Amino acid sequence: MHNLPLVGLDIGGTLVKLAYLDIYNLDSSDPKLVKLSNDIHHFVKNPRTYGKTGVFDNYLTIENVELNGYKGSLKFIRFPSSDMPLFIKICGQRHFSTFLETIHVTGGGAFKYNNEMEQIASCSLSKHDEFKSLISGLEYIKIVNPLNEMYYLNKSYESCNWSMEDLYPYLIINIGTGVSVIHVISRNQFERVTGTSIGGGTFTSLCNLLTGSKGFDQAMQLAETGESQNVDLLVSDIYGGNYDLFNLPGDVVASSFAKLKDKSHASKNDIANGLLTMIANNIGSIALMCAFTKQCNNILFCGNFLRENNIAKEKLSYAMDYWSKGEKRAYFAQHNGYFGAIGSMVLSLTQ
Amino acid sequence: MHNLPLVGLDIGGTLVKLAYLDIYNLDSSDPKLVKLSNDIHHFVKNPRTYGKTGVFDNYLTIENVELNGYKGSLKFIRFPSSDMPLFIKICGQRHFSTFLETIHVTGGGAFKYNNEMEQIASCSLSKHDEFKSLISGLEYIKIVNPLNEMYYLNKSYESCNWSMEDLYPYLIINIGTGVSVIHVISRNQFERVTGTSIGGGTFTSLCNLLTGSKGFDQAMQLAETGESQNVDLLVSDIYGGNYDLFNLPGDVVASSFAKLKDKSHASKNDIANGLLTMIANNIGSIALMCAFTKQCNNILFCGNFLRENNIAKEKLSYAMDYWSKGEKRAYFAQHNGYFGAIGSMVLSLTQ
Repeated sequence: MHNLPLVGLDIGGTLVKLAYLDIYNLDSSDPKLVKLSNDIHHFVKNPRTYGKTGVFDNYLTIENVELNGYKGSLKFIRFPSSDMPLFIKICGQRHFSTFLETIHVTGGGAFKYNNEMEQIASCSLSKHDEFKSLISGLEYIKIVNPLNEMYYLNKSYESCNWSMEDLYPYLIINIGTGVSVIHVISRNQFERVTGTSIGGGTFTSLCNLLTGSKGFDQAMQLAETGESQNVDLLVSDIYGGNYDLFNLPGDVVASSFAKLKDKSHASKNDIANGLLTMIANNIGSIALMCAFTKQCNNILFCGNFLRENNIAKEKLSYAMDYWSKGEKRAYFAQHNGYFGAIGSMVLSLTQ
Repeated sequence: MHNLPLVGLDIGGTLVKLAYLDIYNLDSSDPKLVKLSNDIHHFVKNPRTYGKTGVFDNYLTIENVELNGYKGSLKFIRFPSSDMPLFIKICGQRHFSTFLETIHVTGGGAFKYNNEMEQIASCSLSKHDEFKSLISGLEYIKIVNPLNEMYYLNKSYESCNWSMEDLYPYLIINIGTGVSVIHVISRNQFERVTGTSIGGGTFTSLCNLLTGSKGFDQAMQLAETGESQNVDLLVSDIYGGNYDLFNLPGDVVASSFAKLKDKSHASKNDIANGLLTMIANNIGSIALMCAFTKQCNNILFCGNFLRENNIAKEKLSYAMDYWSKGEKRAYFAQHNGYFGAIGSMVLSLTQ
């Protein structure tokens, strides 16, 4: 068995995330190994591998990464999970299994597509647990990108360069298609605390249905210039002001969308912003409840719902700070939705 | 000051709830008191008092109730909060303040409509805290309706006739326009734990926007014959089956509405049922988290979202039981959304 760090896949409910190490110069006396590396990277780097929907997130590339003795740049690609059957077909047509028999995978799709991968592409899937991969990926990235990976919002962006050890115990709020809350006590000690089905998938679908947007990026664009106050019933709408006895300020949302009697009273932008606000606030409220229960002051929000989503990040930052009187803080990470994919690549080396 | 139990109002974000004691025979040597009682009840019982939108919930009437030495039937009326200005105008026109200067009120509207009530109707509002009223109303109703008030669903309806003392400590999940979670340690010891803005108001508005329904009752009707599986992405849609490591069965919703690409793939009924499922599941998840944190096994769900809403009640019952392995149980109450109004009437006697 070779020990090349190759490829890690994370097949989620909406997106497939792929991480791979583009090795600079494979200095090996074994010509077979060099050919293997070249073949795999040629396949992975070829846009046609993902049909027409692959996105190369070049802005996330990390240079000079070392993994298992090999140096290269760590790169990231994503494509819609609905194109998995096409991806499998291409793997089969291009005989991917002749150079890589086993792919390291996490996410639900590792189970869902197991048989198709074997039967159509002759590849076997080595499955890694979703949360184990997420945490391993996060820990690894924090080592290779220590200064810039994690940040918080304190009016503006502030990076934080302390190590993972400083973070324990912490919560991960993974906001992908759905939402999971994970309590991380140490690298190998973690538990799923709770979750909600109101996540990124809900945002995209409801926005598509209500505004005619096509997908997450368009929905986000609409939300950017909308005003959720035009659709939400605020505490002040019910109370005429603050609800002082329970310290509920007047501008807190009492009921999402309850102000909107029909579509003519709000723009598409207001509706998109209202959905984003509804989902972010609900997640924030659950996160905070868990943080108090588990006595964690550090709350890391990640997952692709937060990709280019400053509205949600600002709301979550404000909520953690305000409702905990500054005790708890929301953190975010540059590589957001890729920790599972990175983790399954890292975990492939431990087998 | 007389000590007649008169009227209690609860002015919420969507509905105004009114409770009053219809005294059988006011046996009093004081003719003024008899006239007062008659005038008030004549006003309260007159449908025109509420414009065209008052609903007399006669099926909830409790006979032979005794309150402060007076016997009568306890009756319940509701009308939309949007008709409060009309109600205030009618109070003014019919000189309500000449027989009742002070009305005992709870809910946000007690603050919002305070000035209008004073200026237009010459009535002052005696304000009672929302949660204090809710708990007082619940405790009182449990005394006058001990056998049938509370019930749980165990495949079918089962009433439970134990006293409130058996319930402590418990959680109240009040699902009105928005949602509040209250931890009740004893009659006078309680705290608001958390809440979510995704409540009954959200259900009605989003259903109106997505299906063209007009209001809660129509939205509920649509939901009754819909299938949320047609809009929701289930764990099995992502995993191809169960997610065994974290005991997530395949039929658990991973992401609400994430299966729905456009409206043509689901009926209006499916969409309404999907919204109901989304909101009930999210509330159930929050309730359970709080129940574990506060170590409560008894969880009382109330509020007008649950009125004639067996779908939500069944989902909540199942969720509490399943995820706690039978340790925690969901309870419901016949007078659901009226506890605040009852409580403000009861509290009027203590002043």
